Amino acid sequence: MEYIKGGVTAAAGFEAAVCEANIKYKDRTDMAMVFSKEPCVCAGTFTSNVVKAACVMWDKEIVESGRPVHGVVINSGIANACTGKEGYDACEATARAFEAKLGVPYNTVAVASTGVIGMQLPVDKLTTGVGLMAEKLSDSIEAGTEASKAIMTTDTVNKEIAVTFEAGGKKITLGGMSKGSGMIHPNMCTMLGFLTTDLSIEKALLQEALKEVVTDTFNMISVDGDTSTNDTLLILSNGLAGNETIQEKNEDYAEFKNALFEVCRFLARKMASDGEGATKLFTAHVLNAKTKEDARVLARSVISSSLSKAAVYGCDANFGRFLCAMGYSGVNFDQTDVELYFESKAGELKVFEYGVPLAFDEDFATKILSEEEVIIRIDMHEGEEEATAWGCDLTYDYVKINADYRS
Amino acid sequence: MEYIKGGVTAAAGFEAAVCEANIKYKDRTDMAMVFSKEPCVCAGTFTSNVVKAACVMWDKEIVESGRPVHGVVINSGIANACTGKEGYDACEATARAFEAKLGVPYNTVAVASTGVIGMQLPVDKLTTGVGLMAEKLSDSIEAGTEASKAIMTTDTVNKEIAVTFEAGGKKITLGGMSKGSGMIHPNMCTMLGFLTTDLSIEKALLQEALKEVVTDTFNMISVDGDTSTNDTLLILSNGLAGNETIQEKNEDYAEFKNALFEVCRFLARKMASDGEGATKLFTAHVLNAKTKEDARVLARSVISSSLSKAAVYGCDANFGRFLCAMGYSGVNFDQTDVELYFESKAGELKVFEYGVPLAFDEDFATKILSEEEVIIRIDMHEGEEEATAWGCDLTYDYVKINADYRS
Repeated sequence: MEYIKGGVTAAAGFEAAVCEANIKYKDRTDMAMVFSKEPCVCAGTFTSNVVKAACVMWDKEIVESGRPVHGVVINSGIANACTGKEGYDACEATARAFEAKLGVPYNTVAVASTGVIGMQLPVDKLTTGVGLMAEKLSDSIEAGTEASKAIMTTDTVNKEIAVTFEAGGKKITLGGMSKGSGMIHPNMCTMLGFLTTDLSIEKALLQEALKEVVTDTFNMISVDGDTSTNDTLLILSNGLAGNETIQEKNEDYAEFKNALFEVCRFLARKMASDGEGATKLFTAHVLNAKTKEDARVLARSVISSSLSKAAVYGCDANFGRFLCAMGYSGVNFDQTDVELYFESKAGELKVFEYGVPLAFDEDFATKILSEEEVIIRIDMHEGEEEATAWGCDLTYDYVKINADYRS
Repeated sequence: MEYIKGGVTAAAGFEAAVCEANIKYKDRTDMAMVFSKEPCVCAGTFTSNVVKAACVMWDKEIVESGRPVHGVVINSGIANACTGKEGYDACEATARAFEAKLGVPYNTVAVASTGVIGMQLPVDKLTTGVGLMAEKLSDSIEAGTEASKAIMTTDTVNKEIAVTFEAGGKKITLGGMSKGSGMIHPNMCTMLGFLTTDLSIEKALLQEALKEVVTDTFNMISVDGDTSTNDTLLILSNGLAGNETIQEKNEDYAEFKNALFEVCRFLARKMASDGEGATKLFTAHVLNAKTKEDARVLARSVISSSLSKAAVYGCDANFGRFLCAMGYSGVNFDQTDVELYFESKAGELKVFEYGVPLAFDEDFATKILSEEEVIIRIDMHEGEEEATAWGCDLTYDYVKINADYRS
């Protein structure tokens, strides 16, 4: 596997475009479109929130129908959630504008929205935007990068990645972009993410690979414990690489799944470290747990704890809060089996050993906690399973950003 | 039922005292003691956190043993959690100092701690403190008030209440105090609370009444989603009021349970409104849910959501966040059945009606949200059950307090 430049337009046959539709933001792009003339096999994972945005319902229907997919239209600013029938009609109008311009059936066009919940989308601006973008579609690397910028809300950096790998003697490209900074919490997937590949693969296997990879990547991040109404991750594969279609879990499938894991892990970590107001990536690595699910739950509970996140912000080695968060996670364990370490570029420090707090050098602890990525390593000594979760610190800026998000 | 002045010393036969033990805080009281010469029936509820503080394990043993109880010793500053055998020995040493001074068996003395997790208690300071306090025991109202102050950590106000009611022709007094400001989240009970009464009641009924009342009071508050390692609620009843011992769920039991509910509700609301950094009490009132448990879960999810809490701080009527929090609560419902209202002293405003956002006056919404208690009323239109949960807003000060709690 090799990392290459680019994102959603890296794979063969994928084009993108953006525009300034002025939906809520001014003086910036706020719509993006991805298009593949070649029909794509499409898999997706969606929010587990009972209150699903209109666009989530639209996309679920498309993914579940098994129809080929030709593209996706995304807007930032308004989430099209809690908008009733009017919201669903906005999805259809967007897809019909796509059909009118690009000649592919409207029910092969996915849509996604992110932003304020409980406001209606201005349909005329959306359809005008689709028209503008259809004229500007490009398969350049830059077009992909522009798309990853247009879908940002409170994100401070755009998020994209592309890799190549080999399957069936052919070079395959897989690229993607995502956005997400607040309302991020592991439960299905937790943001907007769009992956494109020229691989040829059967739909059922594509869906299975995506679901499995999401469990240990996007579902292992949290910014604030709030599972969004809009979380959507889609992967489109148009088969243009010319490999023999993957129809079973062979070596090619393993190669693809490995690449998919790396791409999703990269985007997930990037979202966690760009959490609203965040100054640090806060990683929990649980080792030697009884079961894989125990390891995941423990790691997620630690990076989701407000008190742990505030301690990381303050560079305070207040390890009791981490143990407390493990204790209420729902996993049963004996604290006298547990060892805790703080880790970063600056070094490593053991702070808790088999149920007993250790004396440690506070200055060194502060030094470790002052780095850009802080890892808490938790050795459960109860089994052989491990998991990693990624979050961020809780800062004044998180509060500031969210106290007046709508204004 | 009548509200009277006082707290933990209001009921007949209960004395209290405090001292400056300098455990972690300087220049303030940090130990308290409650004593009843008359042996008490004792019931308790404790944290559901797997990582339980040493004192929680000590008190659970006492409550479950069914032995009479003579009192409790409390310290603030260090939580005695994650402290292994040394921590448990500190509980015993404290109780033995109590026995030495007051002549009651050490295994009838409860202990409770609150503060930093993962530090050992200075045993000599504790036992010296017990000795000092034993000399100063008093049944005055002031002694109870002083106790409610000594157990504070990041609390900004002390929390106490007392009521009288009638049972079996006798006037019964019930009083109590609690502390709690951070690491507060509904799960069993979520703070330290001590209730005293001169009622005569059987232990099993006392325990049942306490457990039932906690479900709709202390278990319905949240400050930060972190369920503490130390949560303890104890009620001591010494029978000095002379009523015929309550042995069944008769009218006297109903009177008592009603008084207990009011006392617990008062203390719970007081803790929520004094949440770390809080500027407001944030109440969610769910009406017409399918089941009582649905109503509780929905109400708690709303007041626990970081994004909803930040919106309340910013006086931003961003009602989509409340719907989002309901949606990921685990309760299944149809958003097209739901109506949402904001409510406070300043008035009432409907913002969402059967799945559709309503246009509303933003200035009026801000006015409503600027009051000291803000209520979100949620009508599910799915059944007849209701529940109320209490939380607080998420502010810069919450982050500030918790970024360097240990220093």
